[in-house]
Amino acid sequence: MEQYIPSKLLSNAVDQFAKLPGVGRRTALRLVLELLKRDENSVTAFANSITELKQNIRTCKICGNLSDSETCSICTNHSRNHSLVCVVENVRDIIAIEQTGTYRGTYHVLGGLISPMDGIGPSELNISSLTQRIEQGGIDEIIFALSANMEGDTTCFYLSRLISGKGIKISQIARGVAFGGDLEYTDEITLSRSIENRTEYGGSL
Amino acid sequence: MEQYIPSKLLSNAVDQFAKLPGVGRRTALRLVLELLKRDENSVTAFANSITELKQNIRTCKICGNLSDSETCSICTNHSRNHSLVCVVENVRDIIAIEQTGTYRGTYHVLGGLISPMDGIGPSELNISSLTQRIEQGGIDEIIFALSANMEGDTTCFYLSRLISGKGIKISQIARGVAFGGDLEYTDEITLSRSIENRTEYGGSL
Repeated sequence: MEQYIPSKLLSNAVDQFAKLPGVGRRTALRLVLELLKRDENSVTAFANSITELKQNIRTCKICGNLSDSETCSICTNHSRNHSLVCVVENVRDIIAIEQTGTYRGTYHVLGGLISPMDGIGPSELNISSLTQRIEQGGIDEIIFALSANMEGDTTCFYLSRLISGKGIKISQIARGVAFGGDLEYTDEITLSRSIENRTEYGGSL
Repeated sequence: MEQYIPSKLLSNAVDQFAKLPGVGRRTALRLVLELLKRDENSVTAFANSITELKQNIRTCKICGNLSDSETCSICTNHSRNHSLVCVVENVRDIIAIEQTGTYRGTYHVLGGLISPMDGIGPSELNISSLTQRIEQGGIDEIIFALSANMEGDTTCFYLSRLISGKGIKISQIARGVAFGGDLEYTDEITLSRSIENRTEYGGSL
């Protein structure tokens, strides 16, 4: 049965929220009614934060990270190791890696992965800017930090062919059973690969 | 550790979303990045739906329901039973009851419950408009559909004293074990009250 909504204005706002990923109509209604309780300035601030973001956000011309200016805060940070480039699918991956607080190199955001099924080829991705960075020199190592699936593997393979022979070390992030992860609940592929790719005991410490 | 966000604009939008009830910073980031993927028109439509709602939504002058005009779609509906008024705390309760599709009377939205602890007295609530409706006549029965807690009980008691002696039937929604509800998982108060207030077998069918 269709949800009764007493007002078109309300219904419109609920529709907009319900289009967001993972937000159902009940949650959308709760969020909208919550916003409606606030004063007008607060509601305007909410709405403006979105439109201003969309209108003024920029993409770093070096790495493709989101930025308020032409180049992002990581690419302009002289204390980072600019000879190390970590290739990621999207900005959320940068945020996740930065969260660890241990990586001090730079990034390169592809903006997707090669997926012939979805009609995404290399030309749809942010790859020419990566080769440009390589041509300019100064890069010693490129780390692939892409999803461990068909698309990620295809993209790694494509990029490794593109980069190889240029004297740059190519690596990829380690795959295996998560630290603190229970063997019993680890999926079979991860578990079998982690046995295949076992490392010398004490070697990674 | 504080979340790394590559842009002040992004960070501002994430802050705004994270202020919504039940939305953490990770979810906020996911929603904002999802919005950012859309074209500018779609983002503007999202933002406008909120500001337009806040600026133009009205409160029904009869019952307090949200409305696009002076009186709501229920109060102006001649096929509803206007002699029956269901008193609810908020608009979400109206939506929940309308969802059942079985109630054909009208509503009255209090906009809260009497709560001396939170400094909410009768004057903070939408009660004078209820007595006004009663004075105008035509109401046969008032149903209290308020929360079964201290505040709900206090409000019911206050309203019943206000209404009684005016020849209007006062009722409240039935409380008990939910249909399909498992006795084992029903809380003790509901269970003991449902035994106390047992009804004749077959009586409610």
